Amino acid sequence: TRALLKDQSRINMPLMERAKAATNPLAQRLLTLMDRKKSNLCVAVDTQSSVELISMAEKLGPYICLLKTHIDIIDDFSKETIQKLKELSEKHDFLLFEDRKFADIGNTVKMQYKGGVHNICDWAHLVTAHPVAGPGVLQGLCKAGLRDDRGCVIIAEMSSSGNLNTPAYIEDSIKIGNSFGGFVIGYVCQSSIDVDAGVILFTPGVSLDASSDSLGQQYVTPETAVNEKGADVVIVGRGITGSENPVERAEQYRKRCYDALCKRFES
Amino acid sequence: TRALLKDQSRINMPLMERAKAATNPLAQRLLTLMDRKKSNLCVAVDTQSSVELISMAEKLGPYICLLKTHIDIIDDFSKETIQKLKELSEKHDFLLFEDRKFADIGNTVKMQYKGGVHNICDWAHLVTAHPVAGPGVLQGLCKAGLRDDRGCVIIAEMSSSGNLNTPAYIEDSIKIGNSFGGFVIGYVCQSSIDVDAGVILFTPGVSLDASSDSLGQQYVTPETAVNEKGADVVIVGRGITGSENPVERAEQYRKRCYDALCKRFES
Repeated sequence: TRALLKDQSRINMPLMERAKAATNPLAQRLLTLMDRKKSNLCVAVDTQSSVELISMAEKLGPYICLLKTHIDIIDDFSKETIQKLKELSEKHDFLLFEDRKFADIGNTVKMQYKGGVHNICDWAHLVTAHPVAGPGVLQGLCKAGLRDDRGCVIIAEMSSSGNLNTPAYIEDSIKIGNSFGGFVIGYVCQSSIDVDAGVILFTPGVSLDASSDSLGQQYVTPETAVNEKGADVVIVGRGITGSENPVERAEQYRKRCYDALCKRFES
Repeated sequence: TRALLKDQSRINMPLMERAKAATNPLAQRLLTLMDRKKSNLCVAVDTQSSVELISMAEKLGPYICLLKTHIDIIDDFSKETIQKLKELSEKHDFLLFEDRKFADIGNTVKMQYKGGVHNICDWAHLVTAHPVAGPGVLQGLCKAGLRDDRGCVIIAEMSSSGNLNTPAYIEDSIKIGNSFGGFVIGYVCQSSIDVDAGVILFTPGVSLDASSDSLGQQYVTPETAVNEKGADVVIVGRGITGSENPVERAEQYRKRCYDALCKRFES
């Protein structure tokens, strides 16, 4: 609650006001999109089939602000996969978010971002990076992709059990991220942190049902994530993609998450 | 020096004795290979061209114990790239080391390791992982690839400036790694750590010339790495691949690094 008191402006400010407060053009775009679409739901589609990825993106597109991918797990990846993702991103008005978790020295991530079979910089509006290697990771990414429609989300804190994200680590992450405000649009974190109103907080590990998986992932409800932990964007994976009716489930999550966000503006 | 005193057995034990002390089969294999080939040199080939990667592997193969790759930066990657790497690994007696820096929850890294276009588990004897997400990252990798000829090197400490690898982080890394001794063969670290004689220490950021690059990477000499910082395997990248005569340079590094290692057995 200490942190919550410190960043009241981010917590209680309506999305369009935050979009105006944001200095990062992609943060402005995402906050505006969230308001327009009434969605702060990011769906994580963790499939190894491009057919299933595209099918999920087509079905769930209308309910989400972001589609989170792990493009390197797609067995039948091709240029067509990217072409279709780009088309669906335009058609259904969501951004592409490649959860690459860049975590190397600058010279390496520069090539991992712009290059290789997946050429992430070409199509992903947003990518994730661990700050564990220091500010060089962001210097490297910026060398490859500093444009108005490209940005990065810093992993300040993982949702998995036994993670090494101590309070000091989280604080250092934010210092590093803040010094790259033209590229970093926000943070992945499990609880509210003290950042400007234009900076966006992403929280994974959200589910209506499960409390954990067998490989250390832990879950909370949308209301806990948004109202208690200060999440702006809620990331949901298997809770939607693994259900019998993903579309119905996505709409349920969208409503629960967005209603929780709107409650913050009223308080 | 405190750490050096604590792990005298690893520091002063000849390679074949350490191979016998090792409980991990791949650690045994690498230590034996290092002794047979008189090489503790790992070359990092950071090129975006598969032709250049294969050409470097062919030329430098005789001097190295490990070839470190970033397969995801190769623009013209194909199954043939892997086929050739496998052939050269056999021909020149070195192991393949994909520096993927896995850093996600278990369910994700499982698919990133075994799957996707690069299908790393199929060909890389060794991979790297950051322990930042907790033990789940190793649980996930083990689900995909627990076999005698597959192993993992934990990134306990990066060589880049401003990294977030505090002494507590490094200690936690080793705790996590030690609890997966059947899969983890060693650590990337910048100074000696207290581990069993059969566990291997890898040190990057080694060069005869440069003291830093423009993106935050910092360098030390082979002797400093091996004799002062306790490195077993020395990782050299641009110091070899960027030189006018990479073969001559590789032999220089091999000799400097292996001589430094042998000095430890005599003391």
